[in-house]
Amino acid sequence: MSVTDELIANAARYASTFDKGDLPLPPARGVAVVACMDARLNPYGLLGLSEGDAHVIRNAGGVITADELRSLAISQRLLGTTEIILIHHTDCGMLTFTDDEFRGSIQAEVGIKPPWSAEAFTDLDEDVRQSIARILADPFIPSKESVRGFVYDVHTGELREVDKAA
Amino acid sequence: MSVTDELIANAARYASTFDKGDLPLPPARGVAVVACMDARLNPYGLLGLSEGDAHVIRNAGGVITADELRSLAISQRLLGTTEIILIHHTDCGMLTFTDDEFRGSIQAEVGIKPPWSAEAFTDLDEDVRQSIARILADPFIPSKESVRGFVYDVHTGELREVDKAA
Repeated sequence: MSVTDELIANAARYASTFDKGDLPLPPARGVAVVACMDARLNPYGLLGLSEGDAHVIRNAGGVITADELRSLAISQRLLGTTEIILIHHTDCGMLTFTDDEFRGSIQAEVGIKPPWSAEAFTDLDEDVRQSIARILADPFIPSKESVRGFVYDVHTGELREVDKAA
Repeated sequence: MSVTDELIANAARYASTFDKGDLPLPPARGVAVVACMDARLNPYGLLGLSEGDAHVIRNAGGVITADELRSLAISQRLLGTTEIILIHHTDCGMLTFTDDEFRGSIQAEVGIKPPWSAEAFTDLDEDVRQSIARILADPFIPSKESVRGFVYDVHTGELREVDKAA
């Protein structure tokens, strides 16, 4: 039995007591969260989110690339969110390698260098600011009044604000 | 007080009872989940995930673009995951518009047409298969033995398997 099979069994249990079938499509709290995919960072527990509350966008690092700008444009333009919360975290895997190392190791193994940047970074706070700056520079996201960036400490559970859109 | 302020207050409560400070960086269950950002889809509740269990990657639609391939390559190559779970869902916002409409409306307002596809789709199951196909075609993701695609029903809470990598 694979781990996927076990998680499907959990899903059957979730459905058996499900009582949230009437929630509307637009997020009730009007917020989009962009967070790292890290397994230790649970945006639901951390932010007290429940089903229906917020869009949650996640990737390696919690960085802003073209796909996050696409998702945020859809979130705000079609589904009415107006606030953006960015969450990076301590002990992030993205701090453990460089783009050149990672892409070079793939090229050595596969024979092709990936066409993307791995988006590795060396300074957490600086990368949070970089993410805010990429959002502010994007012409397709209409609401930029509340773009706030945080670092989550995976050892203490604390959320520290780094910067916000001016 | 903004919604973001309220969620920060929730985070302070989370930290005050936090007892998960010793979890390792690699996901304990060896799984990466790629799901839609939709507010009604809570991967933690649905799959029974806890802090430390799995990478969670999310965007508008739960689609596979270059950034999800980047995140999956990092997840597998640097942090040891081997199984991939894709989750789309019923009543998805991505079913309500076309790329041409959305990008055209932005062009009409902003004067610039977004350089990205919005990744809208008209058939849920077909888009799940498209996501699986994009992963199978990617040369940088090493583990493709368990790539399984699902549709979550936001009205019943049920998870239905659509297809898996052959």
